[in-house]
Amino acid sequence: MSHAIVKDLRAEIGGENILSAPSELAVYDCDAYTLKRNPPEVVVFPQSTKQVASVVKICNRHGMAIVPRGAGTGLAGGCLSIGPSILVLLTRMNRVLEVNLRDRLAVVEAGVSNLQLTKALSGTGCFFAPDPTGQGASTIGGNVATNAGGPHSLKYGVTVNNVLGLETVLGDGSILQLGPLDDPAAFDLIGVLTGSEGTLGIVTKIWLRLTLNPQARRTTQATFDSVDDAVNTATQIIQSGIIPSAMEVLDQSLLDAIDQGFASDISSDSKTALAIEIDGLAATLERQQEQILSLCQNNNAKEIEQNSLDHQPRSSRKFGKSALGATGHLSPGYLIEDGIVPRTKLPPILGKIAEIGRKHQVRIITVAHAGDGSLDPIILFDHRDRATVARALAAGHELLDECIALGGSVTAAHGIGVEKLDFMSKQFQPADLQAFEHVRYSFDPFGLFNPGKLLPPNESFNADIDAGKT
Amino acid sequence: MSHAIVKDLRAEIGGENILSAPSELAVYDCDAYTLKRNPPEVVVFPQSTKQVASVVKICNRHGMAIVPRGAGTGLAGGCLSIGPSILVLLTRMNRVLEVNLRDRLAVVEAGVSNLQLTKALSGTGCFFAPDPTGQGASTIGGNVATNAGGPHSLKYGVTVNNVLGLETVLGDGSILQLGPLDDPAAFDLIGVLTGSEGTLGIVTKIWLRLTLNPQARRTTQATFDSVDDAVNTATQIIQSGIIPSAMEVLDQSLLDAIDQGFASDISSDSKTALAIEIDGLAATLERQQEQILSLCQNNNAKEIEQNSLDHQPRSSRKFGKSALGATGHLSPGYLIEDGIVPRTKLPPILGKIAEIGRKHQVRIITVAHAGDGSLDPIILFDHRDRATVARALAAGHELLDECIALGGSVTAAHGIGVEKLDFMSKQFQPADLQAFEHVRYSFDPFGLFNPGKLLPPNESFNADIDAGKT
Repeated sequence: MSHAIVKDLRAEIGGENILSAPSELAVYDCDAYTLKRNPPEVVVFPQSTKQVASVVKICNRHGMAIVPRGAGTGLAGGCLSIGPSILVLLTRMNRVLEVNLRDRLAVVEAGVSNLQLTKALSGTGCFFAPDPTGQGASTIGGNVATNAGGPHSLKYGVTVNNVLGLETVLGDGSILQLGPLDDPAAFDLIGVLTGSEGTLGIVTKIWLRLTLNPQARRTTQATFDSVDDAVNTATQIIQSGIIPSAMEVLDQSLLDAIDQGFASDISSDSKTALAIEIDGLAATLERQQEQILSLCQNNNAKEIEQNSLDHQPRSSRKFGKSALGATGHLSPGYLIEDGIVPRTKLPPILGKIAEIGRKHQVRIITVAHAGDGSLDPIILFDHRDRATVARALAAGHELLDECIALGGSVTAAHGIGVEKLDFMSKQFQPADLQAFEHVRYSFDPFGLFNPGKLLPPNESFNADIDAGKT
Repeated sequence: MSHAIVKDLRAEIGGENILSAPSELAVYDCDAYTLKRNPPEVVVFPQSTKQVASVVKICNRHGMAIVPRGAGTGLAGGCLSIGPSILVLLTRMNRVLEVNLRDRLAVVEAGVSNLQLTKALSGTGCFFAPDPTGQGASTIGGNVATNAGGPHSLKYGVTVNNVLGLETVLGDGSILQLGPLDDPAAFDLIGVLTGSEGTLGIVTKIWLRLTLNPQARRTTQATFDSVDDAVNTATQIIQSGIIPSAMEVLDQSLLDAIDQGFASDISSDSKTALAIEIDGLAATLERQQEQILSLCQNNNAKEIEQNSLDHQPRSSRKFGKSALGATGHLSPGYLIEDGIVPRTKLPPILGKIAEIGRKHQVRIITVAHAGDGSLDPIILFDHRDRATVARALAAGHELLDECIALGGSVTAAHGIGVEKLDFMSKQFQPADLQAFEHVRYSFDPFGLFNPGKLLPPNESFNADIDAGKT
């Protein structure tokens, strides 16, 4: 790290917003994907969009790579510094700027955490719908970077469906403002930036759509002897016109884990369970609960339990969210994968995952979201045992290959980061990857932002662009 | 038009798929925006994606511009040939390739019309949600090009929310396939292509999300003495947790027009009406109708009528869809504008529109969608009277300026085309326009597709890109 760039940064944003001592940088050598580590050269904590723009201009002048980061809860290594780079932490840009109930929107700086936003909305009757697993710490900027979802995405959408506008600092330090509006003209660049994993610019301010709290919530838990019965029930529930707020298939692996970890309502001799949550007007829900009950019965459910969650906070759901807790009892380390397949392909993928676990001798615990076909397989290992780590990684890779083979994708919510780079050329055709590269280049011709992430390296392509693509 | 390019085209796609006689070309000198006209040099009717790719390669080789077109129902001149260009008509690519009810999707060629798709889905219990006004003729490819919506977009979303995948021919003749999947990795290029008005490539095949037919439908029609009361009712309905499938504010201008054109249920001495349609499970709707009734009463509604539409086709809605018919009785010509403002800004924009009509001495009839704030103002004129045409255009421009001033956009569904080019630099900052230009260049570095549309000309910028953007 040249002294010159630190001096420039200090002059622009002040020494109190910069870390550069090796002991301080060590904390930032990885995000929640801990299998690869490398500290950045400098960490900066800009306090305003103007300071972000100044930092970007300085980095541009010095040809220094930029890695944006929120709370660092990302599971795919998107905040890892691969080569020499400056880590731009948005966590000091943490003001909720506006809560506008009449237009049903909130305006926040990128470093505001999901938890902080939930508190700011407490008592307003509204909430911000995406509920990623890391919501206790994760930032809204991080939600945007990974296009985060959560168990309620089936009904309420993922982040991109709940973003009305974005302010973004581009590679030349200019500030792009898109929205806030439901349907602005020309290309949907909010859609491009949401999920771009910090490769196009630094999102600094976000206009969010707020959703009205549902009046009432009901759950159904049913057990089945076969995964097919559970998935058929899920498909028929959607086919009947009900859109559950969440619907998860829990296979044997997870039921056993919950059974070992907690005292559970679900009998451990069941092979599969389906957990369904519906919300909305109370009058509607009674009728829908009856329909769900009869669909479960028609599909050979063994035990069925229905409950009201009206007087419990939204985060009180059991099942899927117990999965991580349950694994804590079983293993000192775990790798949280994600993937997605067409909904009707859930039975084959769950069968394949069980097979992969047996083949590689690792325990894999899977939560499957029956609405959209997304999967959260947790692969258990002991990181002190290098052979187990290797087997866990091999199992994870095979699992992702199977998602692609079934017409799915290697990520539903975590993103590609560094973890899944190698799968991009399996999932996409050369023309697709080239279109992605062109778009990336169109935003960041300097190659400043999060290099080495999201898209596989393609040197010949970049040379091609520089030569005018002819 | 050089003889060479026609010869090349004939060799690739056959003479029966080519028109080049001036008398044949005259039919294609405009789309539904009839104020500017210019015939293309050649019209081609490719029958397959492979033929589209061949046509694009030939045009690329000859440096000939390409204008893609579906049914030509576009209202912003997006299918006008500005300079020498080849019009690529997708209407012979009109096969419904697959209807998959279990995965709830359909696969169609771009030239399939909305009506044809509706027929193909008849009896399946499912429908394709976007319902643009031109649905009797408009093509799905055209829906994608303009990101078309309709009165039901409030609940069911616009086209982009109902597209799962796209096959697109790019400027070098390569074929890009995105999706079909809810949440593929990397940048959301489906979002970029949907609404890109044929400026990035030619969409040839589309994977569509299907929606379950609602079990029941109910309508409410209420009249008010003030626009504020009607808009407040609309806001409170949404605030109460009900998402109507459609909700329109009809101001005095439209009520008078309907009254003059048809025998109507609505008394002509009302200043404003609110038309609300809800759909879903019958059990829910009764309760929601009661809530809507009491909200209308609380906001000083004068007359309220509630009805069931259970046994009528979805297209049977009155009100907004009567507007065009009503104008037929009043004027030989009209200009259909569109625009959008934040929902809560509907009262001021409706007031402004009335003022603009008086100032320019033109009659303007407006349907306002109370859910998303979008507007369909119809400006009446007699095209044989050039002074009236000029006044109508001036009124239209002022109306769009007011949409921008209120934080809205100059288009909600029609697109920019050639009609609204001049407004882009009013609505967007230079950094925003530059980002759009970069994305366009990244897809179409050759400048082949629909030149002179969507983005205002920016010669200096293009020179800048060619010089490597440094």
